[in-house]
Amino acid sequence: MDNTAAQTGAFRYVTVERHILARIESGELRPGERIPSLRTLGAKLGLSVSTIGQAYLELERQGVIEARPKSGYFVRERVQRLPRPSRKAGGSAEPREVNRNTLIRQVLDTMGRRDILPYGVAKTGEELLPAKALSRIMAQVVRDDPEGCLCYETVAGNEALRRQIAFRCLDAGAEVSASEVMITSGALEALFIAVRSVTRAGDNVVIASPSYYCFLQILEYLGLRAIEVPSCPQCGVNPADLAGILRKFEVKACIFTPNFNNPDGALMPVEAKREIVAMLAARDIPLIEDDVYGEMYYGPKRPPIMKSFDEKGLVLTCSSFSKTLSAGYRVGWIIPGRFHDRAFDFKGTTNVCSATPTQMAVAEYLRQGGFDRHLRGLRQALEKQMRTMRALVGRHFPAGTTATSPGGGSVMWIELPGGRDGGEFYFRAKEAGIGVAPGIIFSTQDKFNTCIRLSYGSPMTQAYQDGIRRLGELAGEMPCAPGDGAAWPETARRAALAT
Amino acid sequence: MDNTAAQTGAFRYVTVERHILARIESGELRPGERIPSLRTLGAKLGLSVSTIGQAYLELERQGVIEARPKSGYFVRERVQRLPRPSRKAGGSAEPREVNRNTLIRQVLDTMGRRDILPYGVAKTGEELLPAKALSRIMAQVVRDDPEGCLCYETVAGNEALRRQIAFRCLDAGAEVSASEVMITSGALEALFIAVRSVTRAGDNVVIASPSYYCFLQILEYLGLRAIEVPSCPQCGVNPADLAGILRKFEVKACIFTPNFNNPDGALMPVEAKREIVAMLAARDIPLIEDDVYGEMYYGPKRPPIMKSFDEKGLVLTCSSFSKTLSAGYRVGWIIPGRFHDRAFDFKGTTNVCSATPTQMAVAEYLRQGGFDRHLRGLRQALEKQMRTMRALVGRHFPAGTTATSPGGGSVMWIELPGGRDGGEFYFRAKEAGIGVAPGIIFSTQDKFNTCIRLSYGSPMTQAYQDGIRRLGELAGEMPCAPGDGAAWPETARRAALAT
Repeated sequence: MDNTAAQTGAFRYVTVERHILARIESGELRPGERIPSLRTLGAKLGLSVSTIGQAYLELERQGVIEARPKSGYFVRERVQRLPRPSRKAGGSAEPREVNRNTLIRQVLDTMGRRDILPYGVAKTGEELLPAKALSRIMAQVVRDDPEGCLCYETVAGNEALRRQIAFRCLDAGAEVSASEVMITSGALEALFIAVRSVTRAGDNVVIASPSYYCFLQILEYLGLRAIEVPSCPQCGVNPADLAGILRKFEVKACIFTPNFNNPDGALMPVEAKREIVAMLAARDIPLIEDDVYGEMYYGPKRPPIMKSFDEKGLVLTCSSFSKTLSAGYRVGWIIPGRFHDRAFDFKGTTNVCSATPTQMAVAEYLRQGGFDRHLRGLRQALEKQMRTMRALVGRHFPAGTTATSPGGGSVMWIELPGGRDGGEFYFRAKEAGIGVAPGIIFSTQDKFNTCIRLSYGSPMTQAYQDGIRRLGELAGEMPCAPGDGAAWPETARRAALAT
Repeated sequence: MDNTAAQTGAFRYVTVERHILARIESGELRPGERIPSLRTLGAKLGLSVSTIGQAYLELERQGVIEARPKSGYFVRERVQRLPRPSRKAGGSAEPREVNRNTLIRQVLDTMGRRDILPYGVAKTGEELLPAKALSRIMAQVVRDDPEGCLCYETVAGNEALRRQIAFRCLDAGAEVSASEVMITSGALEALFIAVRSVTRAGDNVVIASPSYYCFLQILEYLGLRAIEVPSCPQCGVNPADLAGILRKFEVKACIFTPNFNNPDGALMPVEAKREIVAMLAARDIPLIEDDVYGEMYYGPKRPPIMKSFDEKGLVLTCSSFSKTLSAGYRVGWIIPGRFHDRAFDFKGTTNVCSATPTQMAVAEYLRQGGFDRHLRGLRQALEKQMRTMRALVGRHFPAGTTATSPGGGSVMWIELPGGRDGGEFYFRAKEAGIGVAPGIIFSTQDKFNTCIRLSYGSPMTQAYQDGIRRLGELAGEMPCAPGDGAAWPETARRAALAT
């Protein structure tokens, strides 16, 4: 058993998850093999059958195991667990000033460029999005109300759209009214407003390690200090680790992506979400939740948002349609809880309101009701692309490469073997016309320097497949850091090849 | 002669302007009367004919005088100069913390609401905007490139659009390349990015008094201190006043609206613009220029932007199409000069990029070439609405009311007589379903408490005219502040009635 998890008490089924995951990683449980029955494992670990069942459901949701009728649970054929980067790389929990901007600007600079293969940007390929339907609706709304489209929206945003978003929150476990929702220009703006609403320069903010690089940018711009809590690619942030930080430092806010953390794809278990929300509520610490990938789960059920456990209005949920419908429309939202007035002021000051016609078009698209069907297709496509990406990375990257197997979202977190430098790799790839995101930008520390993040949001055309092959060659041509090679186990290579 | 102006040396023709304006205000020169010839006045003031000519051109541009073929210059029939509020009300130039947010939020809250008559918001009525043409073009661009519309734009924004904006800068006297232009979600976002790019919390920033209330919000949110320099409704900020402040305080930036300052409509003379840019350049102080009304001049020629005198890249010009084309599209821009990289980072961090389809539609609208024709019609309509508004205010507001006669833009700055409180008036008007902007939100000080700003951007339909009448009644019903009544000369009443 994993002692760290066991220490957290109420957090039992995560212990079970880790038990299973560890055995898959060690090779004790192999793809296609049956895992112990609920009763057997319950007896072995001294836990109830329902706790084991809850863990198995979570693992199924993550796409790690599958239930076969009348036969029990099996490790999925194409899944092989990989070592967890954050556990290996160490790192400090001391508050740090953030200063990653120069490299991040380079990565942003390749965004939107059509001459660069877009593995560097966590975007969903337009081929997977309902482009024609949305364009048809946009043409319709601007023609139906040409003057209305020219007007400022209210600061809070289009009301029909806010009602639709509130409605969708039910699926994610949260009862929210339209008046609690505020429209923003994408999730990043929502996050920016959220952080600004609950902090002042010099404050400590806890983020996962690794975290979406834009969190770091926001902290840097607002003069905040980052405290990094390790994220494990399976379960994300461990409540016990967070508790330790809260005991040691004065924390003014946390920013987490509980559903498919960018870049490591971690899905925080339901019980961990509940525990973290309660832990922060006890200390009146605001929690900023980035749920931009929440609808892009591969498992059977939409994972809940942390807002669903929020009894004190301390959770600020931020999301957008950028990954599921259109990034270019810049339609996101924030549900700022008790910080509504401050968020409202800040939105008004930043850019008055978001664009009117794009809000009207998205509201009308949602009203017409094809979104859920579209999402089902999108999820299937993304899961398939993830598997293809894994297979290609396994085939073309040097021995010792590791890669995550996310249960949702559209990014894969990869460690280059032999201490190869991800920053150097980024520049080499860019020269070859291929975008990747270097690991160093996802942390204030240097522990992810050998990592890269690849987006598999675009369909795997031949050109894209060739791009991965070329990336693998580039990685192979790079020098290893002397003495570091031994740190990367050969099992990882086998693992990557297995899918 | 006006001694303050004379002290500034190189600033001679402004002296002439003030000479003429003072005589119009005193009644010595009346509407329709001929003003002295260039030679006569030149001899009288001891100035060259060309200096007098430059002043007359400026006055013509401001719509104060008009040239009649072979007859010379005349005071325009419908123009009567009013007392300058800022000169009367005093006020301090000490740096002040900014704290106006609660009331500003109330004003923002009425924005976009169709149940409130929109005199409170400086917007252009949709009836005056090319709604159908723009909708037709939007429908066309989303159909021509449905997938392109879904993509993130580059952080800097649509290139065709940036080229068009750079091209339009030539008219405003500045040579700018497309690569120097960055698209933002409206001018407010541009201003926010500009201020953030050149200041840190605690810095002193000079603003005109009165200034656009969103400047105050930006300063408040960024923890900056405001130093207010008086704006005169005719000439805006006097360079000599600014020089005095620069000698006394450490100033990190200035924010001015040289072309039709919101709320007092002041147009800064060309020579003052040049002098201020040079003065700030000598001290390496960035100048943030809000040119959102620059294309909405009523005179014969587009007034230049301060950027046109910028030799060191210290001027950050911010503007948008919100007043001239569509507020709801949220298409603005910044030309950040030497602060390009910081502005780029900040745009990327705030919301990645602005919406794609709205940028594409505006770029295509500009390319098709109807914008200048539209602007000519818009300017005529706004000037006419301004005159109607003045006539209505003169007819319905209590005796002693004063009102500006702006040479561009879409807002009128009004002082209520007898010390009537503009904040109280705001609440009474709102209850009656009428939006106005209370003077108190345009300054960190209390000297504009008896002022209000009315927008005349919407066509004067019967309902709108009734709204002004009702406002006048509401003002009449309000109590005067004891002892303050004497401060408001009866000439102001006559002046307001004259148009």
